[in-house]
Amino acid sequence: MTRSMEEIRKECPFPIGEENTMFAQYFSKKSYTEVLSGGPLGIVNVTFEPDCRNNWHIHHGAGQVLLCTAGEGLYQEWGKEPVALKPGDVVNIPAEVKHWHGATPGSWFSHVAIAVPGEGTGCEWLEPSAE
Amino acid sequence: MTRSMEEIRKECPFPIGEENTMFAQYFSKKSYTEVLSGGPLGIVNVTFEPDCRNNWHIHHGAGQVLLCTAGEGLYQEWGKEPVALKPGDVVNIPAEVKHWHGATPGSWFSHVAIAVPGEGTGCEWLEPSAE
Repeated sequence: MTRSMEEIRKECPFPIGEENTMFAQYFSKKSYTEVLSGGPLGIVNVTFEPDCRNNWHIHHGAGQVLLCTAGEGLYQEWGKEPVALKPGDVVNIPAEVKHWHGATPGSWFSHVAIAVPGEGTGCEWLEPSAE
Repeated sequence: MTRSMEEIRKECPFPIGEENTMFAQYFSKKSYTEVLSGGPLGIVNVTFEPDCRNNWHIHHGAGQVLLCTAGEGLYQEWGKEPVALKPGDVVNIPAEVKHWHGATPGSWFSHVAIAVPGEGTGCEWLEPSAE
């Protein structure tokens, strides 16, 4: 369902955190991050304002799992149609697959992102996904 | 906050799932599980009825991470006092540490449990934690 930032704060069990300035260059609009765990698994709660998407990107070496917690989101793999995301949805993003995720144009969206551990992993940021 | 099963269903973004019969022998009361992802990370939403605790147990080889999503819970490591858990709390359970988790006497409780991957991992179930 369409959600405002205040509704996301109530609906999402995890803190919204601070504005994501470190990776802002790879996001089309504002996003917010709260690190839930630094190890042994890197777990971050990511919240997107409406219509915010990250750039196309690739997780090399090991993938990422998204646990959707609030609002309405989108996920797209290269060469496929975008998939709608709602709270409770889980996305297993395989390593080496070019993709993006973010909020729908009309709603805020939150997901927990869990990095799959592996040797020599890293994220390769590519071109914007927004038209 | 104290939560009924119906309140947990509204508050937790993830499905409650089915009654946990497979591991019922290691839980003091009823619990419910929904597998959110089978791989590359084993991720299960676990819901405990009030006063339900699992037995003392040890994750060998690699630990487990708990993301608390609804209600009121407890976590205890051997030789330490129990710790209260609320939505948004994260517990990094190290490998080889004897511990238990569950709901407070007065509230239902849900957490997402994420298995840290590793070689030759396994759970060793021990004696009941409830007095």
